[in-house]
Formats: sequence, structure tokens, C-alpha cells
Amino acid sequence: MISMVIKMNFPTIKRNQKKVINKANLGMDLEEAINESNTYYLNNNIAVIHKKPTPVQIVKVNYPSRNKAVITEAYYKTPSTTDYNGIYRGKYIDFDAKENHNKTAFPLANVSAHQVNHLRQVKEHGGIAFLLVAWNRYDEYYLLPFDVLNEFWEDSLKDGRKSIPYEAFQKRAYPIQHGYLPRIPYLRVIDEIYFK
Amino acid sequence: MISMVIKMNFPTIKRNQKKVINKANLGMDLEEAINESNTYYLNNNIAVIHKKPTPVQIVKVNYPSRNKAVITEAYYKTPSTTDYNGIYRGKYIDFDAKENHNKTAFPLANVSAHQVNHLRQVKEHGGIAFLLVAWNRYDEYYLLPFDVLNEFWEDSLKDGRKSIPYEAFQKRAYPIQHGYLPRIPYLRVIDEIYFK
Repeated sequence: MISMVIKMNFPTIKRNQKKVINKANLGMDLEEAINESNTYYLNNNIAVIHKKPTPVQIVKVNYPSRNKAVITEAYYKTPSTTDYNGIYRGKYIDFDAKENHNKTAFPLANVSAHQVNHLRQVKEHGGIAFLLVAWNRYDEYYLLPFDVLNEFWEDSLKDGRKSIPYEAFQKRAYPIQHGYLPRIPYLRVIDEIYFK
Repeated sequence: MISMVIKMNFPTIKRNQKKVINKANLGMDLEEAINESNTYYLNNNIAVIHKKPTPVQIVKVNYPSRNKAVITEAYYKTPSTTDYNGIYRGKYIDFDAKENHNKTAFPLANVSAHQVNHLRQVKEHGGIAFLLVAWNRYDEYYLLPFDVLNEFWEDSLKDGRKSIPYEAFQKRAYPIQHGYLPRIPYLRVIDEIYFK
């Protein structure tokens, strides 16, 4: 039952919630860090990349006054695409961000078939598609190109392993050195991989 | 007060709602027609263009059981970007869809400064940016390139007129002949303007 909740990846609501700070993630919330990085890129005219809103199925809306609408019943929906997309150096960019709390492997259960298909389509149409994976235990960030993800994904469908080992990240993904401004400078890695 | 509601552009909730059909819009809901067109483009491997979810500020969530989350208080947020983006023929595409119920002009009040700025950034980074405007009274659809929108927008900020006249659409926007599959074949117009 709990795994359902984790898989649905309900977005955190800032109110009424204490921030969990531990050494592993140094208090850095991945979504927040990426959003801040995107704001930095936008303000410095480097790229236009935004997070998509969380998809919500709205069931009931009240209008206590004419110019006010209060949603009183709604449900989280499973996203059909990824969370982030935009344009960088004239290229379409599309990715999802994932936090991995494991030590030895990144479970493919973190990724939905919808997302893999979407990233595949992006790739086929000439876009840059990847996952940005945070290994919280190590405070490490990796850009995992779609092709590598896809290889493990296809394998898993043919009774292969259901996760990507840490060693594969070290060998075939690209580390993102996190810093201050931007906190997760993933476009530097994009430069290396796709614009060289 | 009513204009606030219209400007916020609350999405329609399908349940509990009778469909309003009149001669002007021939029962065609613009968002629905564009979504269907995008599905057609996706299924036929022509383009990957999706509508972004409606942004919602979530305030209260109840968990009646462990694997279920019910949002019990939320509010519509003003979108900071446009509703649609994606990739077509290797190019980043970004647009918003607007319904115009007027006969003689398209009021610029339908567009937010946020959206104009966002489309400007997209254009500057090499993307294709436009508005798709439905003139409901005439059952006509136009692709309005960002440059034309921007000219009228800048004028309006310098005490110019606050709308784009119908004649300007006839002269400087591109008509989209609507049909059956896809219902709004706007990529055909993109081919003409940007890929010739």
C-alpha cells in the first residue's frame, strides 16, 4: 500500500510540513533545486525550461463569490509525460527528475511506461531526452541519457533486472557537479554530450 | 467581476455540465479540438505536442486511506507560460490557444504579459512561437505569429489600441482550414510559414 503512495509521487505541500534535513541530501529538495537552476538559466537568457504543473483531476468547484473559485474535490493524476521541458540552444529539451534513496541501484519502478514512451518519441523527433537522477545517499547527480535508460528498460521487459546498478551510472551516465548558482548545472553536461 | 472569471479561463469540468452547442462554435470546444489534433499528430508520429496541466495551488489534502489522496482545498493559479508546447520536425514549438467571441477585434486582455514574455523568450532561443486564435462568430481559426502579436502588444503599452482588428488577422495571420482529422491542422500552416 505504501509503495503506491511512493510511486504516485505526490508533490509535497510546503505548509504543515517540517523539512527533513539529513546529511545525505543536505536539505536540498531536488525539484526546488532544479526549479532554481531553471530560473537562473531563464534570468540569464541561457535557456527557457519550465516545470509543468502537477496534473490534477478536478471534480468539484465552489464559487463562494463571483470572482472566486475554490476547488473542493480533486485527485492527483498520473502524469502522461515528463515534468520538465523547454528550449536550449535552439533544441527541444525534455526530462524527468528522480530521487533515488537506494545505495546500489536505481529501481525502474521509479519510471513509468508513459514516461519512457514519451522520452522515446522526443528522441525520435530530434529532441534531447534524459533523466536527471539524484542519488541522495551519495549526494550525487547524474544525467542519464534516454538511450541508456531505454536499454535497461527493454531488458527489464524481457525478464532482465528491474533496476540500473550504480556502476552503470558511473560508467554510462554523466555526473553533474552541483554548486551554488545554478545549484544543478545540468546544461553544462548537455553542452558536453550534445553540442560537441 | 465577471471579466475576472473569464480572464482566469477556468477549465471546464466535464461532469455535471451540459454541453452548450450553438451555431457560432458548432459545438467545437477549442481545447478539445486542439487536444484531439495533437493526439492525431502523436499517433501518426508527426509531432510530440501536449497540453500542460492546469496549474493549481494545492492547500489541503486528506488521506482517507493510505493509498488515496483527496485534495479538499485548492485554487486555480495564473499560468506563467503557455498551454501547449512540444517538438515538430526537430523544432521547439510553443503556443497558446485563445477563443475570441468578438466580431471586429481580438482584445489583448485575453493575453497576459507573462505569456507574451514567455513567447518572446521562446522566439529568441530559436523556437516557433504563436497564438492559435479561434474567431467563434465566424468559425475561423488563425495562427497569429508572435511577431505580429508583439507589434500590437507593444503598441498597446504605448497608449495604442488594446486589441487586434479582424482585418489584421486577415492580412497578417494565417488561416487554419479546420477539418475532420485532425480537426485543427495547424502544423500544415507551420510547414508553410517556418519550413519553406
